[in-house]
Amino acid sequence: MTEVPASHRDLLDAQVGVLATVGSDGRPQQSAVWFLADGDTVALSLNTRRQKTKNLTARPVAGLVILDLANPYRYLELRGDVEVAPDDDGAFARRVGAKYGADLSQHDAPGDERVVVTLRPARVNAVDMGR
Amino acid sequence: MTEVPASHRDLLDAQVGVLATVGSDGRPQQSAVWFLADGDTVALSLNTRRQKTKNLTARPVAGLVILDLANPYRYLELRGDVEVAPDDDGAFARRVGAKYGADLSQHDAPGDERVVVTLRPARVNAVDMGR
Repeated sequence: MTEVPASHRDLLDAQVGVLATVGSDGRPQQSAVWFLADGDTVALSLNTRRQKTKNLTARPVAGLVILDLANPYRYLELRGDVEVAPDDDGAFARRVGAKYGADLSQHDAPGDERVVVTLRPARVNAVDMGR
Repeated sequence: MTEVPASHRDLLDAQVGVLATVGSDGRPQQSAVWFLADGDTVALSLNTRRQKTKNLTARPVAGLVILDLANPYRYLELRGDVEVAPDDDGAFARRVGAKYGADLSQHDAPGDERVVVTLRPARVNAVDMGR
């Protein structure tokens, strides 16, 4: 399955996902991230200084899990290859900021750069294990 | 850091973690799992038929993220190598079942086997990004 089913589409509007990248030691690295969904594709605005960004540049694969925080046995897993592109004018960071009512550049130090990381799922798992 | 700080120890008693393994295609695979903590070590009871178990046997590395569901900007990431050991008499599955008030064997088909997957963190990230 590479499409998000209707039963889980609400999770694409959630606030927080758990991103998994793969480190140079082969171990998965996970962190909570903000994301923006466009159809079944999700995109992140990441500072290039972060380890996860370095992992994604070196090994362009990722997963994103979005839990239903009210019932974490219902969740969405997106898994696939990523594209890392510059966001030189900060336009994408502003789109993410609009979702969260936040100014992402406030988290950056002078000279920091941001990229757009786009995850197009090769695999979608929509899970509901009940309670 | 390889120890869970006092600020985040409560999360070791949480109900659900997000496990990350690495697939044969090099992509991270994530799923919500039950777990049992013993000190800073976490252990899972997994059915050997599952893809995550096959990944862990072939590539014994993993991560576990435990979100504070009431504030997902506070979470714990454990990352490291895993040990996969047989649980032939089901003793460990019963210990996990005791935490959850559940009989894990009800999820198994006849002839299924379970293993104990132990994750000893080589890296601990205790994150609190506020709201």
